[in-house]
Amino acid sequence: MSSPSPDQLIQLPKGFSFSALAAGIKASGKPDLALILAAPGTTAAAVFTTNRVAAAPVQVGREHLKQTRGRVRAVIVNSGNANCATGNTGLRACRQVCKATARVLAIGGEEVIPSSTGIIGVPLPTEKILCNLEALTSSQDSTQLGLERFADAIMTTDTRQKLASATFRAGNSDVNVLGIAKGSGMIHPRLATMLVYLLTDLQASPVELTRLLKHSCDETFNCISIDGDTSTNDTVLLLASGRSKVRLTDAGIRSKFACALSTVCDSLAEQIVADGEGVKHVIRLSIGQARTPEEARQIAKTIAHSLLVKTAWAGADPNWGRILAAVGRSGISVDPNRVSIFIGKQKVCHHGTACSFDEREAHAHLAQPKCEIHVLVGRGRACTTFLTSDLTAEYVHINADYST
Amino acid sequence: MSSPSPDQLIQLPKGFSFSALAAGIKASGKPDLALILAAPGTTAAAVFTTNRVAAAPVQVGREHLKQTRGRVRAVIVNSGNANCATGNTGLRACRQVCKATARVLAIGGEEVIPSSTGIIGVPLPTEKILCNLEALTSSQDSTQLGLERFADAIMTTDTRQKLASATFRAGNSDVNVLGIAKGSGMIHPRLATMLVYLLTDLQASPVELTRLLKHSCDETFNCISIDGDTSTNDTVLLLASGRSKVRLTDAGIRSKFACALSTVCDSLAEQIVADGEGVKHVIRLSIGQARTPEEARQIAKTIAHSLLVKTAWAGADPNWGRILAAVGRSGISVDPNRVSIFIGKQKVCHHGTACSFDEREAHAHLAQPKCEIHVLVGRGRACTTFLTSDLTAEYVHINADYST
Repeated sequence: MSSPSPDQLIQLPKGFSFSALAAGIKASGKPDLALILAAPGTTAAAVFTTNRVAAAPVQVGREHLKQTRGRVRAVIVNSGNANCATGNTGLRACRQVCKATARVLAIGGEEVIPSSTGIIGVPLPTEKILCNLEALTSSQDSTQLGLERFADAIMTTDTRQKLASATFRAGNSDVNVLGIAKGSGMIHPRLATMLVYLLTDLQASPVELTRLLKHSCDETFNCISIDGDTSTNDTVLLLASGRSKVRLTDAGIRSKFACALSTVCDSLAEQIVADGEGVKHVIRLSIGQARTPEEARQIAKTIAHSLLVKTAWAGADPNWGRILAAVGRSGISVDPNRVSIFIGKQKVCHHGTACSFDEREAHAHLAQPKCEIHVLVGRGRACTTFLTSDLTAEYVHINADYST
Repeated sequence: MSSPSPDQLIQLPKGFSFSALAAGIKASGKPDLALILAAPGTTAAAVFTTNRVAAAPVQVGREHLKQTRGRVRAVIVNSGNANCATGNTGLRACRQVCKATARVLAIGGEEVIPSSTGIIGVPLPTEKILCNLEALTSSQDSTQLGLERFADAIMTTDTRQKLASATFRAGNSDVNVLGIAKGSGMIHPRLATMLVYLLTDLQASPVELTRLLKHSCDETFNCISIDGDTSTNDTVLLLASGRSKVRLTDAGIRSKFACALSTVCDSLAEQIVADGEGVKHVIRLSIGQARTPEEARQIAKTIAHSLLVKTAWAGADPNWGRILAAVGRSGISVDPNRVSIFIGKQKVCHHGTACSFDEREAHAHLAQPKCEIHVLVGRGRACTTFLTSDLTAEYVHINADYST
């Protein structure tokens, strides 16, 4: 149950097909319009951005899931334009795209979930989407090739596709879980968003899916951070076609599915951080001995968002003083004299004070593409793990280029 | 009542003298030990870091002010070592330095306030300080030359001295307020801290000084941010020698003094941001139409700490979508449809949606060393102004260099 290497064959869940094309939304002429078609009876759950500024597709997606009580037949995604901060015009444009997609597919308009990712504050080029819907829906493909075309078309500043899959056995059947994601920082000049589509052929009610999705997200996508900015368009959508005929009946299958879902989400989360803008090092930051998981997460976030810590990581600098200082300003009443810090397996700070350690070894550990930092705060038994990245000069270059 | 240009003569408050020398704490051999001697009867107030990880001198300074109920005769400062995360050894070293300074000056040990700034987690080289105290105390100078030597010796990664002064007339006397600061980001590989010394010849009780100092700090030093990291050693110390013979008797003098103090603090705050590591643009960010000043400040902080916003500023990019997205995730229940954003005098976003504006003019405004951004959130009448900076690749280079 691990994520595939790029050339590996992915086991596709039954009941889904894909298509993609270049509609001219991206100035580059690259593919920018994509569709997932789901079998009749597909159930759904979703988690959207918590940002008060929510893009039109997020607002419409929420409405549609409410109207259908978690039934979805199609997902229409465009890249190159976020349809955010576009007011009522943007909302109307989004609804128009959903209706037109539904008409071509002969399904209900509210059974379509829209996603957009790209520049903020620019009107959606609706006409470019509408005149390509016939071509898009007539080229559905349920093979890995179709999947990869879809994964390509939803990218913006991503440098590579992000796919993960897991399979488990239930009786005589295989249940497949597939994940497709895009995202690499909140992203590029006025481009935004993490989009994640999780597809399975399990049979489950929207209520069951929602509970399992929230749990998986809390442990994975809610525990990553590249730059600490929350996108206006973030969407994680889980669709279950039921075509494996396996139902979420007993605790055994539920537990296997939860595990497969978390495996896929964890892999996608790590792929997103590793493909972050300018990222040289992925840091697995674990906080131990907190009173509650929330407390542990607050400390982890403060460390992960500290510019001084992130720039030290860029230089592979075992500079634990900055980590300690971030713990101190996290808002949690940590006693500095009980804090210990590890870089890799080495303890570098014991009870708030320097301890002798091999600096070259610590530097060598941090010079790797994947590193581990462990902070014990001496308050309790709760812990958390957070996936984050360094902050490099390249990130600044990518995001500072004046591009209009 | 404005801050002096570097070559301008500063009106020094009566009752203070300065000295500085190179004790060998900094590897560079530059001056790193400095003293302010205050006249008998000098009263004091201080504001220290809110970081739970407080350096030894911060802990000892708090104790001493409590013991003396706000009486101070000397301030001993070393740069090159923060004496932070050094445990009980660090506390003992700090107390030893205060006692030895007091002995040489024939004053009480608790009348000495210590400050340290520099590398974290390295033991204070106490011996280098102790053996230089005789030389330090015997070269006191109450002229501008002495002041500038002091201002030089407390610098770490600062590229220039930070001085400001203000004078007001009260009856037949002049009252002088002088400010000396160091700080440029939380700072450099394992170097930390903003230190501010405010000296006046006004006569005032410690209680009066504390109230006025807190008010001035709230509006100035608590409204600046370079990288959002809070140092373990931050200290703002206000000393009043009383030598002008002017007392804080009536409301008129209180108001003049408050104004002079804020002028000095505001100038120092701006000097600190402008000298921030890698800073190319100082941004005066004002938030209007918030419900409360706290709410306005929380929104300002979220914008000022957003990596995407700060990198856009580095590129002089009038990218209001990132500012709007930061407002949306600030934790305040802002209605995006009521938010308007101005760059310089131009409105670039009206009620959450793009409005037509001259992009070249907006870019030109943001390309200046000092820029103004104004955000109206449509919730009430409270406002705040926050001084912050862009985030450049140079900041990353300065802070990522592995330096051990």
